[in-house]
Parts: sequence; C-alpha cells; structure tokens
Amino acid sequence: MKYSIIKILPLFLGGFLFAQQSADSLQFKNISDEMLVNGTAYENLRDLTQNIGHRLSGSAAYEKATDWAVLKLKEAGADKVWKEEVMVPVWERGKESLQIKEGNGKWKSLRMLSLGNSEGTKGKDVEAEIVFVKNKEDFDKLPDAAIKGKIIFFNYAFNQKFISTGQAYGDAGKYRRSAASWAGKRGAKAVIIRSLSSAFDDVPHTGMMSYDKDDTAKIAAVAIGPKSADELEKTLKTQKVFAKLNSNATMKGDKLTYSVIGEITGKKDQSVIVVGGHLDSCDVGEGAQDDGAGIVQSIEVLRTFKKLGINNNHTIRVVCFANEENGVRGGNQYAANIKKNNEKHIFAIESDGGGFTPRGFGLVMSPEKRQQVQSWRNLFLPYGVHNFEVQYAGTDIEPMEPLGVPLAELIPDSQRYFEIHHSDEDTFDKVNRRELLLGAAAMGQLIYMVDKNW
Amino acid sequence: MKYSIIKILPLFLGGFLFAQQSADSLQFKNISDEMLVNGTAYENLRDLTQNIGHRLSGSAAYEKATDWAVLKLKEAGADKVWKEEVMVPVWERGKESLQIKEGNGKWKSLRMLSLGNSEGTKGKDVEAEIVFVKNKEDFDKLPDAAIKGKIIFFNYAFNQKFISTGQAYGDAGKYRRSAASWAGKRGAKAVIIRSLSSAFDDVPHTGMMSYDKDDTAKIAAVAIGPKSADELEKTLKTQKVFAKLNSNATMKGDKLTYSVIGEITGKKDQSVIVVGGHLDSCDVGEGAQDDGAGIVQSIEVLRTFKKLGINNNHTIRVVCFANEENGVRGGNQYAANIKKNNEKHIFAIESDGGGFTPRGFGLVMSPEKRQQVQSWRNLFLPYGVHNFEVQYAGTDIEPMEPLGVPLAELIPDSQRYFEIHHSDEDTFDKVNRRELLLGAAAMGQLIYMVDKNW
Repeated sequence: MKYSIIKILPLFLGGFLFAQQSADSLQFKNISDEMLVNGTAYENLRDLTQNIGHRLSGSAAYEKATDWAVLKLKEAGADKVWKEEVMVPVWERGKESLQIKEGNGKWKSLRMLSLGNSEGTKGKDVEAEIVFVKNKEDFDKLPDAAIKGKIIFFNYAFNQKFISTGQAYGDAGKYRRSAASWAGKRGAKAVIIRSLSSAFDDVPHTGMMSYDKDDTAKIAAVAIGPKSADELEKTLKTQKVFAKLNSNATMKGDKLTYSVIGEITGKKDQSVIVVGGHLDSCDVGEGAQDDGAGIVQSIEVLRTFKKLGINNNHTIRVVCFANEENGVRGGNQYAANIKKNNEKHIFAIESDGGGFTPRGFGLVMSPEKRQQVQSWRNLFLPYGVHNFEVQYAGTDIEPMEPLGVPLAELIPDSQRYFEIHHSDEDTFDKVNRRELLLGAAAMGQLIYMVDKNW
Repeated sequence: MKYSIIKILPLFLGGFLFAQQSADSLQFKNISDEMLVNGTAYENLRDLTQNIGHRLSGSAAYEKATDWAVLKLKEAGADKVWKEEVMVPVWERGKESLQIKEGNGKWKSLRMLSLGNSEGTKGKDVEAEIVFVKNKEDFDKLPDAAIKGKIIFFNYAFNQKFISTGQAYGDAGKYRRSAASWAGKRGAKAVIIRSLSSAFDDVPHTGMMSYDKDDTAKIAAVAIGPKSADELEKTLKTQKVFAKLNSNATMKGDKLTYSVIGEITGKKDQSVIVVGGHLDSCDVGEGAQDDGAGIVQSIEVLRTFKKLGINNNHTIRVVCFANEENGVRGGNQYAANIKKNNEKHIFAIESDGGGFTPRGFGLVMSPEKRQQVQSWRNLFLPYGVHNFEVQYAGTDIEPMEPLGVPLAELIPDSQRYFEIHHSDEDTFDKVNRRELLLGAAAMGQLIYMVDKNW
C-alpha cells in the first residue's frame, strides 16, 4: 500500500505539472504565432527609422519620436498612455573634420565622428603631431613631454576572441569613455580613438564619453574607423604624422523632454511589470537596432497580450525611456518616480541588444527567483532561447535594482550588433523581420510566466 | 575502508574527467581563437562569390570553381588534393519571361524564375488563363475541365509559425518539386508557384523540381515572388487573368565534371572523417550562403588543424561536392566510390544551412554515438552551440548513411536563410564574418572530439 502511494503520488503530481506545462506551452505558441503572423513591430520600426530617423534626446527628431510612441501605444491597444517628464542634457555635434598628413605631405581627410557629450575645438583648427599608443598601459608609460601639446591616438582593437561581442565591447569601452580625460589631464590637445567596432571596414562609431569632474581641460575626442586606425598605426611606425582637427561638438545645458509610457491594466492588482527599451538613439544612422528594435518589440508585447486577450494579473507597462545614449536620465527619473510614488514593481525587462534572434535572458534577481525562471527553460527551448546564465540587466532598468525590482534583459545573438552600433550603418535594412519578432515573442513569453507566477 | 574507497574513487575519476574536459576546452578555445583572429574563410568566400559567382554544375563557372577549390585546399595546407569524377546533368535556363493581363487589359511583366531542371516552352509563347489554387487539396478538388489547357497557379505560402525556417521550407517544398507533374498529368499548360521564401518582397526563388517518370507532358514551371503571388491571388478573386509564358529552360544531357577533395593524413590510421559542403550553386545570385559558406568553412577546418598542429589520429578530408542543387550526383558518387574501394569512414559532417551563427548539430548515428556527442554539450555551450536534438544530416552525405557512417550537419541560426536562398539575393554581403567563422569553429571542435574519441 505504501509502495503504491509512493508510486502513484509522483505520477499524479507529474500529471498535474505536465498539464500545467502543456497549458503554458500552448500560450507560448499563441504568443509566438500571433507575432510571427500578425506582428506589427517590423512595420513600426520601418516607420520610426525611415520617417523620423536618428533621434538623440533633446533634438527635434526625438520630440517627434515621443508623439510617434504615444500613437503606436494607442494603436497597440494600451488602456492608458502618457508622457513622463525628464530633463535631458542637450549635446550637438555640428560640423567636424579630421585631416592628417605625413611629414611635409598633403592633408588627407579621414572619416570620423566626435564622441557623444564631448567638447570640440569650438570650430577652430587644432593642429598637432599624433602620438600613437596601443593601450592605457602604453599611455601610462609615456613621459609627460611626449603627451603635452600632442594629439594622442589610442588604437585598442575590439578583441575578436570573445564569443559574445558584448564582452569585447565592454573590454574596449574605457577608451571611448575615458581616453579624453586621461590625455587631457596630461596636457594633450585632443584624442583620436579606434571605433568600438567588430568590423574591419572604415565606418566610425560614436557613443558617450565623459570628462572627470576634476578635468580642467575638456579636450576634443573623436573616433575613426578600424581601417583608418590600422593604416594610421602602420604609418606612425615609420614616420611622423600630423592631425588637423575641427569639431563644433558642444554640450548646451538641459532641456525638458519625455519618456513615453503605455500600459494595460492588471486584472488582479495594479503592481507593475515593465517592458521597455530606449526611444532615443545616437545622432547618426537611424537608431534601428539600437534601440528602435527594443521599442517596437516592447509595443509588440503589449499589442499581443491585448489581441490574445491574455488576462494579465498585473499591469503590463511599456516604457520608452528617454536619453539612454547620453545620460540615462530617463531610466533614473523612472526609478526615482516609482520610489517617490511607492509604486510596486514586480519585474522589469529591457531589450537593448538589438532585434537579433533571441538566445536567452540576463537575470538580475534573487537566487530563488533566478532558479524559478531557470526552471521554465524547457518551455523556451523550442524557441531557441537557451541561455539563462548571464547576470546582467539593461542600462535603463538598472536604477530599479536598488528598489529590489527583479530585472531581466533580452539576450539576442550578438554577432552583428557592434558592426553597426552607434554608426551611420545602424539602419532599418540591418533588421530581419523574423529575428525581431522572435525577440518580442521571447519577452512576451517570459512576461506571461512572471505575470502568472509572481 | 570500503567507505573511503567509495568516496575517493569518484573523486579520482572526477578529477581525471575534469582534467580531460579542461584539456578539451583549451583546444576548443584554440580552434575558435585561431579562426576568429586569423581565419581565411571570409576572404575566401569573397573571392569565390565575387570573382566566380554562381556556378551551377555543368557550367563554365563551375569548372572554374573546381580549380579554385584545388588552389584553396593547397593554400590551406592539405597533404593531398584531387578531383573526383562525377557525371552531372546539364540544365540551362536561357531567356525567360512571364507576363499577365487582366481581361482585356495590358500585358504586365512579372519577375520570375524557371525552376531548376524544368523544361520551358521551347522559346514559344504559351498563353492561357490562370487558375488559382491555394494548395494541393484545392487542386485535387478541381474538375479536369478546370485544369486542362490552363496555367495553374499554386500560392502556398511559407508558414511563418515554424521557429526553424527549415521546417517551413520542408512544408512548402512539394509545390516546387511536384506541382508541374501534378498539373501536367491533368492537361495543364504550365504551372506558376509562389517562391519558397520567408520574405515578403518580390524576389523569385528557383530550386530543383522533377517530373515523374510517367509524365507524358513535361510542362513549364516557374516561380514568382511572394508579393506578386499575393497580388495575383487578390486579382484572381475578382476577375480573369491570363498569362503569357516564355522559357528556354531545358535539360541538355550529362557532362563529366568533378567534386574536389583535399585531406590531411591521419597520424594513427587512414580511416576518414569527412567535412564538406557543395561547391555548385543555383544559377542565380552568387551562391554565398548556399553553399559557398559550407565550402569555405570546411577548408577553414583543415587550415586550422594544420596551423595549430593538431595531431589528427584519422584522416581529415574536405569534400567539395558537385551537383547538390540539381541532382546530388556528387554525394552519390562519393558514397559509391568509398563503398567500392572499401574505404573506412568514421564520421561525416556537412554545412549546408548557411554561414549563420551556429546553434547545434543534427545527428544521424547510433543512439550510443549520439549520447556520446550529447555528453560533450558542456564543451560547446560557451560557443552558443546548444542544440543536439535534431536528427537530420545533409543531402550530400546522406548517401553514406546506408554504409553505416555516423553523420552530422551543422545547424546554424535559420531565420535569414530562406529570404535569399536560391535567389539573386544570395550574395556575399549577406554573410557576416564572425557568424561564418563561428560555424567553422563549431565543426572543427566536433571533429576534434570525434577524431580523439572514435
């Protein structure tokens, strides 16, 4: 008898769990089918990227994008849509140029981009000899005399050995963020960095840099493409090269703008699940993969929950954050507001790695919650979503971590992202419809499980 | 004492296995690093696709490609390179056109491609009313009178719901392969099919069809793009549409050509591990993803084993198969030859799903061998290679299955393949360098394990 009970109990429980899994996997398929067949994310992205284009926060294009987001959230069926005030820094690029010449040779123009938030040369030509260093260690070894009055060229290459290109980006990131500060402190006139790019082309990539608070000189900082960087390094090994840099880049103070928010109300309570991306982009390209993709995917999740009539227990809220690219003010403001208003959030997920085929989720939450999410792995495997090991969540939702909100980030395939990221190449044609929608499906599926179980 | 032994033994074994895993994972990293940093596959593919281009077997371009493959295998360090005779069918497209008109309207040209191996209209205009069917079931319901003398239009769409696009391709495949035979038997003049494409553009896709042996009429068979197909279906719902088709496509009998083979000799014995793809392509585009990618990846594996000085126990042989696209004569001939010569093969792996990020391997082998490969999963996970469940191996190596050779197929991410496959869009620019090389690395890693353990 005892033996029988032992045998039957697991069978009964197994049957119950199996039925549960089946109901969930059916809903997973409903979400995926609806998006792959009727999804509007791809056409929404076409509209955002081709009719508005790049949209640095503070620009007129960004203002248009906020109206666009309000419209698209309403079209998707949001019960409520609003704009949330955010003060953002306004940075403007203006005209810019970089020329180089060998010894007494002719000036030759290089493709270049001033780095985001950098101060330029106030429209004046800054001319100096270029000093090459491979990395920070080499720079630190240089005597002050070799730096003062010079333009320092950091040619630290993207490390191709990393399988996740995000790791290579992280590895090289300090050169973009800090090189101007390192060199400015020691009397350099400007810095040139090799773009943070996995490609071998000549496309320059911009992105945010910052000066240290104690920097007395805010020197100009520009990026050149990998090909130009390698050629320049080669030339500098045999002869002197001079640069003439002119950049009107400058920071113009703060401006009031908005993050855009839309939600479908929770049927059981009003605690919130956030799904989002950032509505702003760099001021080049079309901001398609970074992060138009995350915006249209988030709206797609809301549309699909509404269309399928999924009775979400909790409020599902799309947040289109302002100013991720050069300040993260939208993310910080959102966290400050929910703290102030004591608004309970049970989960937040972000997509800011591009609309490529989804591979998994980064998870920043308690070990118990993480284990629970990992226990749902089998539901995700048929969708190719297999990696639940990464412990990272996106820039815009990170400010909610201290509030104890469990966080996740969609992890898409990373191989193509950093070829186009922050450059003129980040355009709509780089996005694949099915890859984009599968990313949205994975987020929708995870939100479905969280909504049901938390 | 007994207790101690029980405790120590697993520890000892565990330590041994761990050391083993570590040595293997180090070699996995060596292979990946070498390819990602020094790999020549991408530049080889640029050369093949841009200097030779598409290369249907039997064409002059294919002959050039065989010389190219000999050269590249030698450059990669093969100990021995040769050509293997294969008789291939020669099919030529010639001039072709498709026009349609509504009622008494004007003729309008549609983008189209005759299907591979189809007979055209001998250069004559074939004009008839178009009869639309959605699928085979609808076609079967039509009375003969509705088919005889007509041009039958099958608009069976690629099913977007499948996560693996290969399944959607398989699902829709019979329309390309067999529609001409179905319709020809019942007196139709020609067939038009919707291209087997996951895209929503107007690109037509070709690919092999065949007539049944008992077909008395070999009617023309052409494909149109998804957009034209949907527009045509819509028009046909309200009015009659006529088509004027002209195709010079024809089969010209057999010709002697070659598969190309290169190998590095086994250090322990001469039993063979095959790694390959197909050197031929359809007669459109550049044959970049299908299957230039598989060819350059296979050569990359050989190059890397040689460069790293991996002491391969068994002979590692690259086979660049002839005629996968319209006959599989290269694959059949290879299997026939190794059977005739009683040449022992311990493993064969093929890449013919494009040079996209690798996701796993299809495995066609005994349950014991499959389990052993699956037990290596943890070594592959850091490379994003996670799927070992698929039981399918490629077209060119399948003829070795009856000989008992364990088979595998590289499974790359499938989302973008069928947008460009067999069309003018399958060009070099659709291939990403890192994705291509990671696929080669995964194959090299699996071959390393098989070579060491089998």
